[in-house]
Amino acid sequence: MSSANSNLDMFFKPKTVAVVGVSSQTRKFGHVIFKNFMESNINAKIYPVNPKIDNILGYKCYKSILDIPEPLDLVVIAISRKAVLNVMEECAQKKVRGVIIIAGGFSEIGPEGKKLEDEILKIGSEKNIRIIGPNVIGIYDPYYGVDTLFLPRYRLMRPKRGKISFISQSGAFGSALLDFAASQGVGISKYVSIGNAIDVDVIDVLEYLESDENTNCIMVYIEGLRTKKEKTKNFYNVIKRISLKKPIIILKGGLTEQGQKAAASHTGSISSQIDILKAVFKQTNVIQADDALQLFDMARMLSSSHFPTGRRIAIITNAGGFGVLTTDQLVKQGFDLTTLSKETVEFLKSKMPNEVIISNPTDLIGDSDTERYKIALNKILEDNNVDIVILIILLSLSFVESDIIDVIHAARIKYKKPIVVCTIGGQFTQMMVKMMEENEIPTFPNPKRTVNAVKALIHYAEFCIGREEVCYPLDR
Amino acid sequence: MSSANSNLDMFFKPKTVAVVGVSSQTRKFGHVIFKNFMESNINAKIYPVNPKIDNILGYKCYKSILDIPEPLDLVVIAISRKAVLNVMEECAQKKVRGVIIIAGGFSEIGPEGKKLEDEILKIGSEKNIRIIGPNVIGIYDPYYGVDTLFLPRYRLMRPKRGKISFISQSGAFGSALLDFAASQGVGISKYVSIGNAIDVDVIDVLEYLESDENTNCIMVYIEGLRTKKEKTKNFYNVIKRISLKKPIIILKGGLTEQGQKAAASHTGSISSQIDILKAVFKQTNVIQADDALQLFDMARMLSSSHFPTGRRIAIITNAGGFGVLTTDQLVKQGFDLTTLSKETVEFLKSKMPNEVIISNPTDLIGDSDTERYKIALNKILEDNNVDIVILIILLSLSFVESDIIDVIHAARIKYKKPIVVCTIGGQFTQMMVKMMEENEIPTFPNPKRTVNAVKALIHYAEFCIGREEVCYPLDR
Repeated sequence: MSSANSNLDMFFKPKTVAVVGVSSQTRKFGHVIFKNFMESNINAKIYPVNPKIDNILGYKCYKSILDIPEPLDLVVIAISRKAVLNVMEECAQKKVRGVIIIAGGFSEIGPEGKKLEDEILKIGSEKNIRIIGPNVIGIYDPYYGVDTLFLPRYRLMRPKRGKISFISQSGAFGSALLDFAASQGVGISKYVSIGNAIDVDVIDVLEYLESDENTNCIMVYIEGLRTKKEKTKNFYNVIKRISLKKPIIILKGGLTEQGQKAAASHTGSISSQIDILKAVFKQTNVIQADDALQLFDMARMLSSSHFPTGRRIAIITNAGGFGVLTTDQLVKQGFDLTTLSKETVEFLKSKMPNEVIISNPTDLIGDSDTERYKIALNKILEDNNVDIVILIILLSLSFVESDIIDVIHAARIKYKKPIVVCTIGGQFTQMMVKMMEENEIPTFPNPKRTVNAVKALIHYAEFCIGREEVCYPLDR
Repeated sequence: MSSANSNLDMFFKPKTVAVVGVSSQTRKFGHVIFKNFMESNINAKIYPVNPKIDNILGYKCYKSILDIPEPLDLVVIAISRKAVLNVMEECAQKKVRGVIIIAGGFSEIGPEGKKLEDEILKIGSEKNIRIIGPNVIGIYDPYYGVDTLFLPRYRLMRPKRGKISFISQSGAFGSALLDFAASQGVGISKYVSIGNAIDVDVIDVLEYLESDENTNCIMVYIEGLRTKKEKTKNFYNVIKRISLKKPIIILKGGLTEQGQKAAASHTGSISSQIDILKAVFKQTNVIQADDALQLFDMARMLSSSHFPTGRRIAIITNAGGFGVLTTDQLVKQGFDLTTLSKETVEFLKSKMPNEVIISNPTDLIGDSDTERYKIALNKILEDNNVDIVILIILLSLSFVESDIIDVIHAARIKYKKPIVVCTIGGQFTQMMVKMMEENEIPTFPNPKRTVNAVKALIHYAEFCIGREEVCYPLDR
């Protein structure tokens, strides 16, 4: 059950939006943000604000939000920190419901900045204005069309609609990962850069995402909690509750003493939280990533895969070497290869050329085409000894074409068991990988990342099995 | 000193080449291989051989190599295994110097195949014909233009000329990595797929590469040694000698029992070698990779970077979060961050905006442009407390343009210290990464891979420092 406090619809579903600080210089943050709203076909009225210009990109420009002829759900403040307080006062007067403060230079730079933050928060609390920021990129939601990422789209790609939501304390890191996701064909539900989090913090966003129907997996980058003390106490209960509904994957920056020192000057996070957080993660089924790409890998895996009912893994490959390396990685990370049933082996032997090795790994060898993969994949998924299939397809050295995607897609629907693809290569392969990701087939470039992701999937599923409160969609 | 036996010029610098098994079907191996020779502008005469056709792609096709009117340095045998022995006999008659046997289905499938291998090798030994294969992709050398990779270039990209050579026991894995290298802008000197290695084996190729002026770093994928007993004894001395001249990075497939089982059916490698090999690597300065991408990362790093004279690392970033994560990874992997000299800090403070954090990491913050990077990079490289710089540049969220490449390039020449770039993002970033790699600036997508590669560089340099026999080019 999420609290009333967690309703953040003013940010994600605003009917009226103003962008304060719209400039005619195309590279200024305010300009890009306003253009983003224009281009995203959002179902909301949008108003540019700048006292110095009359119109921008065909829109009438207002001197102040007070001049806008209707109530405002959301105000994006894209001006330097010194002018923010004044706009906040206008927001209070106008009874605005939510503001996003882009500018940095607040508590992260010292006491003077902290004082400014406190004054802003005071207005917010008194007048019931929810605040995201300061020191943020803000939010991105491809479903509703809110996009405050202040870099142009030719430079920072926007991912398509998907099921992964992403909360990041670091705007730059978060946005770069979003850009990367877009280039890989991976979709996103919501992205929230929480920055200094003087009001809306990671707990608020988690609670909002808990009931968001477009989110089935949440990834989080945090350096420290940055939340009020009474909420810190609640953190344990909130993430335990949510992580049984939707996988939560957390990358914690500053897990070492030197890393914490760096974090302190970055977002002002406090070092003593390390041990508490680690303990909380362990007890609440939260998945800990230990690197940026691992965060992304685990999220792709947990968002798009079926959940396994066991940990018996089979490998199918067209490249013996990659089969060997994947076996090594599985064993190193604590897994065994399953033994295929006698029936499976006999059936496949009767269907395959002599050179093919029907075992685990099953090596379809280099001249395998899509049809050979189809026969092997379906028969092995049907095998009761198999819970998960790792499908290695080195595309640059094979006769497999893009119809392999149809084969995998059909097998997913039929058998409802996790199928993970491992492949590496150049342009041709990368194009195919993008197509696979666009069709929600999780794909990894090397055995290590493949096995890491499989491990996260297995651990999450094992934690959830048999618990009544779990409600992940098994047949999604 | 390399032995006379290690002269493999017949493969890499042939003056006359025949491809046996050229087909008019464009997807057949022989067709693709012959076309590769045509397209690579090799400075050699090339002859297609197929008794059933008269000409192919404008070339007269010969019934047999015996009909070719001049001696042959190299014969590529691209026909099925059953016909290989016959062609080998013709090669003996013709006094051919080297053959590459593409077909599989030899010792890796059992005693019958082993017998065939033995007969082929007997002819080779008696008639002094060097053999690569069977069960191989063969070789690729962009300098001289030998290319027997039997997949078309639209499907499997060919890397440009570079300084990394690559020996792989698995043709498919090796080729996929080559394809990947090409797409990333990474150059290659020579690629040799050694397959069943009945004659030319990993030791022969290592010795050949030892004196190859186009090679400054060697990466190797092996599952087992697959060499004659007397040569196994020599392995230790050979790799110890070479690895002090040129870094050797080895990925060993089958490091676990189950992995070995898989390897046995892949290349027939023998499990008992694991412990011996591990011990040998440790004592000989060979760098061990534990995954496909790590192999590639370490090779890029050791091929293109200066060598550090110490392990004092400085981080420069435009994204605090990535600075924190990289610090965490460094500490986890056993390194400390260096302390910048007072003079460096004071100088940079006088040149930078207030919000910039001059420390280690130095956070140039999100609005940094190339100029700010230039000032920081040069000053920090000048600092006597700094041996290595990790340069984090999140390009999608910055004002850094492609002129950053000029800045890094100039700083490398001036200071001769390792500079490593860490960046992640979408199309724009990936384009920039490719440009950096093409200019030999090693670039990694996440803190973990960055630190892994830095670690390999430091360990290799530390092993070499002070040894007379070391002759790596410090100012390359």
